[in-house]
Amino acid sequence: MVKRNPNIGRLKAGYLFPEISRRRREFAARHPEAKIISMGVGNTTEPIPPHICAALVGGARRLGRAETYSGYADEGLIELREAISRVNYNGAFGPEEVFISDGSKCDIGRLQTLFGPEAKAAVQDPSYPVYVDGSVVAGAAGRENSFSGCEDGDCGGGGYGGVKYLPCTPENNYFPDLSRIEDGSIIYFCSPNNPTGAVATKPQLAALVSAALRTGSIIVYDAAYSEYIRDAALPKTIYELDGARKCAIEVNSFSKSAGFTGVRLGWSVVPRDLVFSGGGSVNADWSRLTATVFNGASNIAQYGGIAALDEEGRREVRELTDFYLGNARLIRGALKTLNIGCIGGDNSPYIWARFPGRDSWDVFAELLEKYHVVTTPGSGFGPAGETFIRFSAFGRRADVEEVCGRLTAH
Amino acid sequence: MVKRNPNIGRLKAGYLFPEISRRRREFAARHPEAKIISMGVGNTTEPIPPHICAALVGGARRLGRAETYSGYADEGLIELREAISRVNYNGAFGPEEVFISDGSKCDIGRLQTLFGPEAKAAVQDPSYPVYVDGSVVAGAAGRENSFSGCEDGDCGGGGYGGVKYLPCTPENNYFPDLSRIEDGSIIYFCSPNNPTGAVATKPQLAALVSAALRTGSIIVYDAAYSEYIRDAALPKTIYELDGARKCAIEVNSFSKSAGFTGVRLGWSVVPRDLVFSGGGSVNADWSRLTATVFNGASNIAQYGGIAALDEEGRREVRELTDFYLGNARLIRGALKTLNIGCIGGDNSPYIWARFPGRDSWDVFAELLEKYHVVTTPGSGFGPAGETFIRFSAFGRRADVEEVCGRLTAH
Repeated sequence: MVKRNPNIGRLKAGYLFPEISRRRREFAARHPEAKIISMGVGNTTEPIPPHICAALVGGARRLGRAETYSGYADEGLIELREAISRVNYNGAFGPEEVFISDGSKCDIGRLQTLFGPEAKAAVQDPSYPVYVDGSVVAGAAGRENSFSGCEDGDCGGGGYGGVKYLPCTPENNYFPDLSRIEDGSIIYFCSPNNPTGAVATKPQLAALVSAALRTGSIIVYDAAYSEYIRDAALPKTIYELDGARKCAIEVNSFSKSAGFTGVRLGWSVVPRDLVFSGGGSVNADWSRLTATVFNGASNIAQYGGIAALDEEGRREVRELTDFYLGNARLIRGALKTLNIGCIGGDNSPYIWARFPGRDSWDVFAELLEKYHVVTTPGSGFGPAGETFIRFSAFGRRADVEEVCGRLTAH
Repeated sequence: MVKRNPNIGRLKAGYLFPEISRRRREFAARHPEAKIISMGVGNTTEPIPPHICAALVGGARRLGRAETYSGYADEGLIELREAISRVNYNGAFGPEEVFISDGSKCDIGRLQTLFGPEAKAAVQDPSYPVYVDGSVVAGAAGRENSFSGCEDGDCGGGGYGGVKYLPCTPENNYFPDLSRIEDGSIIYFCSPNNPTGAVATKPQLAALVSAALRTGSIIVYDAAYSEYIRDAALPKTIYELDGARKCAIEVNSFSKSAGFTGVRLGWSVVPRDLVFSGGGSVNADWSRLTATVFNGASNIAQYGGIAALDEEGRREVRELTDFYLGNARLIRGALKTLNIGCIGGDNSPYIWARFPGRDSWDVFAELLEKYHVVTTPGSGFGPAGETFIRFSAFGRRADVEEVCGRLTAH
């Protein structure tokens, strides 16, 4: 008979978010009267703004007419690739360096196939689960049977032997010790960070690029929340740093900027300058891999993406992200009233709240029981997330106000 | 420095379809006056019919209103999963056994991650490239450095050591010798077949299911062209056969039925009865894997899919597939006039034409030079495809008529 893929057996039971849903359903069944409000998942709640939505509608309509019908667009529409380069990178990349995808998470899954089972992963700890879980599935997280404690003992709650966890804690101001990165690593780095909300400064990113160049590593820079940056001194892309095109891939998405979580549209930048140890082009392998196991993003979504990058679309994106940042301000205010320490929420939609000495899942359960609020336990994002809770600012305003009221009324 | 994934190095240079595009561009540069017509790629050309297109437009509009906005729908809309089960499988599967995806090719890529690097692949030869290329990328095609000749010497032009090629030729009426399947294989089986256009009969599929049950193998049944079946005696799904839910996964898509090649929508069925050798549920692992590295199909596309499955949508799908079958009839007629033997095109949009003793790429070049027609060389689909050419019936009617005229006028 067919054997189970041992790498899937090495995944911790239950992906974080389905597990949260399960606990929420259980609570709801016990307390049918409770009005549960979610601040757990980073799922957008506001409608897509009119100009961008009209482009999606127009994209769908085009498919109904012979003159404008289009089929496979594997590599992505050229107008979209050019607009991404122009708007996000000052035109620094050719369209052949910009790959259109159905979102960052899917891209990161495929990137792990690109690097293969021999790759050594280094991740910010805590971090978005796909970096570690995708590495596990690709066979790059070590052969030890599952989650067991990381190799040098300083990651707290346990981890995979083949993954280098780089703790980001209040002690290091949420920026990791880069001297721990081994030669030839794949460094997953997310800024604005999910879940901590920390945003790396220009000197910090310069140090990251230096570390990657020194160790012959490749950075996979996840900029999915870059549109939430309001402080002009903070870099919105890794390519603001000299040398990054020799050592970094960037992934980004329209999910959190234009409300495309359900529409599915993102991109990756793989510069031509990026090479493997043998001198082979990473861009060429990425192009071949995506042609082999992917068939492109929806062309309807791509027309929406083009609109999100024009002048009116950018204004709408600004307004939409401003709205969620307004939610974040309310949440920060409520936590302050309660004397709960937190970071994030200023240039990011996530607030990272500290509950010293507490177990994350216990705090999660308490918030659900007492206030009927769903959050995300920090330990779900990695060993160093223990004792923290992530609050997401994605929500309807009335719900956020009600949660803040419930929290501060007690 | 970071090493290249050796599995990607094992891929033959150039994915088939980009290679065809390259040769077409080269020819066009040399002959700017030539009116080149493509019958090469299986890309749809007809607009999406009105009822289905209206649902896509409506799906896009919903995202612009707060009351109907939706974000992540990872597992797929329940209405769509239920409609797929009802329309395609007489309701035989629960919604938790139907997984919505962005298309069959992407699903097959992820399925290879599900089975992992230890899986043994068996494929119809010739076959759609993703079965073999995806196995290569997943590390399941053997460690030999690239394409070198298959293990038992009967596959003709060479292949990967770790892949069992099952030749489908005129001699066996395009149905493979099932006794060659090894224990515990993943059997990729496509019917109506791409590229041959052959459709497996009910007794043939019964034999396939028996072989899978006997060898403890899992069938990955690609039914992407099932809507082209007109002969009521031919099965449209593997689940028409007893025992299939214990040994088969089915993948399917709206690409070729409703013209969704650019929209991106498909599904997989993974029955609860399907287990790995240790007794673990394949359905549970698939659910976990897709939650880890995928984020669901576009919700706009999903509303279109729901409409394609209602009464009016099914009528439109029938009309659209009838149109392409009409093209196929014209192509078959032209080949008959030229005394070129072929199969397919009656219950399938592909016609498989035989050029005994000739090299496929030479015939491809001759058709391009002489008639300015782009086709697909059979050898691109596997060793046993050598001496064949695939004609695709996806095209505008006027183009198909012109190609047929050019072919028969000479």
